[in-house]
Amino acid sequence: MLFRQLFDQTSSSYSYLIASRKGGEALLIDPVFENCDKYLKLLDELDLKLVKAADTHCHADHITGLGKLRDITRCITVMGKNTKVDLVSMRVCEGDTIDIDNISLGVLYTPGHTDDSYCFVMPDRIFTGDTLLIRGTGRTDFQNGNPHAAYDSIFKKLLLYPDETLIYPGHDYKGDTVSTIGEERYFNPRLQVSSAEEYAEIMNNLDLPNPKMMDVAVPANLSIGEDITRDPDILAATLETESAMVKHGSKNFLFIDLRETKERTRDGSIPGALHIPYPELQNSLRTGGALNTITNSASMKILFFCAYGERSALALRDARESGVDNAMHLAGGYAAWTNANGQIEVIN
Amino acid sequence: MLFRQLFDQTSSSYSYLIASRKGGEALLIDPVFENCDKYLKLLDELDLKLVKAADTHCHADHITGLGKLRDITRCITVMGKNTKVDLVSMRVCEGDTIDIDNISLGVLYTPGHTDDSYCFVMPDRIFTGDTLLIRGTGRTDFQNGNPHAAYDSIFKKLLLYPDETLIYPGHDYKGDTVSTIGEERYFNPRLQVSSAEEYAEIMNNLDLPNPKMMDVAVPANLSIGEDITRDPDILAATLETESAMVKHGSKNFLFIDLRETKERTRDGSIPGALHIPYPELQNSLRTGGALNTITNSASMKILFFCAYGERSALALRDARESGVDNAMHLAGGYAAWTNANGQIEVIN
Repeated sequence: MLFRQLFDQTSSSYSYLIASRKGGEALLIDPVFENCDKYLKLLDELDLKLVKAADTHCHADHITGLGKLRDITRCITVMGKNTKVDLVSMRVCEGDTIDIDNISLGVLYTPGHTDDSYCFVMPDRIFTGDTLLIRGTGRTDFQNGNPHAAYDSIFKKLLLYPDETLIYPGHDYKGDTVSTIGEERYFNPRLQVSSAEEYAEIMNNLDLPNPKMMDVAVPANLSIGEDITRDPDILAATLETESAMVKHGSKNFLFIDLRETKERTRDGSIPGALHIPYPELQNSLRTGGALNTITNSASMKILFFCAYGERSALALRDARESGVDNAMHLAGGYAAWTNANGQIEVIN
Repeated sequence: MLFRQLFDQTSSSYSYLIASRKGGEALLIDPVFENCDKYLKLLDELDLKLVKAADTHCHADHITGLGKLRDITRCITVMGKNTKVDLVSMRVCEGDTIDIDNISLGVLYTPGHTDDSYCFVMPDRIFTGDTLLIRGTGRTDFQNGNPHAAYDSIFKKLLLYPDETLIYPGHDYKGDTVSTIGEERYFNPRLQVSSAEEYAEIMNNLDLPNPKMMDVAVPANLSIGEDITRDPDILAATLETESAMVKHGSKNFLFIDLRETKERTRDGSIPGALHIPYPELQNSLRTGGALNTITNSASMKILFFCAYGERSALALRDARESGVDNAMHLAGGYAAWTNANGQIEVIN
């Protein structure tokens, strides 16, 4: 495995680059906006293709790199389902996985520091975001933080892992890089409590100043990067759910599901849709690619859809750039479709 | 393996803690004086016994923790043979190893940043000190630095390792934690040269200010910690080489070699000496231990010696504290003995 822990000195944040091999797919966890050029250089040097960028939660102390990385690399942005962040291509729940080739990270929902805090789990390590730090824990006094929820997340989820499990946190302010579940269980001063009430008592009396960048970072992180769905060219080829329902089943009108297999298995799909996961789209769109061939030879109209309408907007732009002009995308994605009681089918 | 990379924010230095298992022996590489309490706490929490602390070279930007760690833990301090630092218990050459239980680090002599720069090598990683940094190299303009020597150390020693070998440097100023030989070979801007002359041209024109702490750190690092050999109680029980030669072979006078097996095999020993490696001494000195029994039952005088007379002075203090009073130590150690043409034997 290729693994890089990268430190942002301004915010004392850790970001993580993960890939199974040189030349393969890469995932970035908690990238920092100001360091994106550095990540891109490193990805290039290591011959990696960034396919996903995931934030453990909406950060209050630095601006996320998710938007910039998506705009430049067309990677899929990933956050937990409970986040209020607007432009996330893939929203994951506890029990889901975040996959790149040969590597799969489990998802734990660990509210407490914020109500959109998640941890990502590999067999030997956990990326704990701000839920559990080295000899510390994330504050619980803003963004719907809750010390009782934090206690449950730490004691009833994270501390169930074996002592030797490595902890890679979202921050460190003291020069530490890694710890283990066992070390934190026994030596994290905040975890030497016997009840959620006792933990809340500690957390409610920390009396910390707000993070320096909070007033800038939180609004910026709630609305990340360019909103491609509002681009006039994209809007002109956007179909609302009701119009899409009318088209559904029409001859020469092909629905294309851009989500991953696991999202389809979990939530179902629109009957008759062709499945082309977003990372494979570029290949299918090029001259000689399957989708390019289908649309050109059969004068077929296509309708891209994904989970929330972001990957499909990106796909529309990709299609235009590949000379595929007869494409549209579904506003609000599969979520809007199911909200409007659109017809669905179970995917096994 | 237990492995911790620890960052000192003041000097942007990396220190490394290595052990094969919880409860086992530990090695610290390039510890920083101000962080010693933190290391000791971590060693205690991980249930590790610090047996060695090694510096890759005499640092100019921070004060080494070697002296403080030795005074508190009685660990063996290790540096390369070419160092001018005074109180080093074990001096290693290229081809030697630095051993703790189940872990052995090879030693490379890599002059250039300073003339006492060494790298320590494990099967999958190299601790490069300031010889090779991530996308950088150590300056060569003080402490007998030499860009031509640095070129040879990097190109003719380090870059001979496989591309996937991990690089753990002595510093990083940009938030990087680890790299590989391959990355540095291809992407380190200073290594894209075709000759030592070209490299020297770059290094001789860096025009860097001296490190902030240089005037404090270098003198402090050349003379580390308390010089136990000058303690009056120790001096009173110190034997100079000539007196020791007279005693050598006497009845009831036992020479005890505190060095490691590898030092003995490399350099030979004094004929008839009993071998008790320094880390095993405490156990032998306690009531019921072999050395305690020998000295008490046989009214035997003992003379500790090591490589340079530092471990033996520590041993003398240990002996006193264990109630063994009939011990002395050899001034200047085996080095002084061989310089005076003392009798030696080959150890196989």
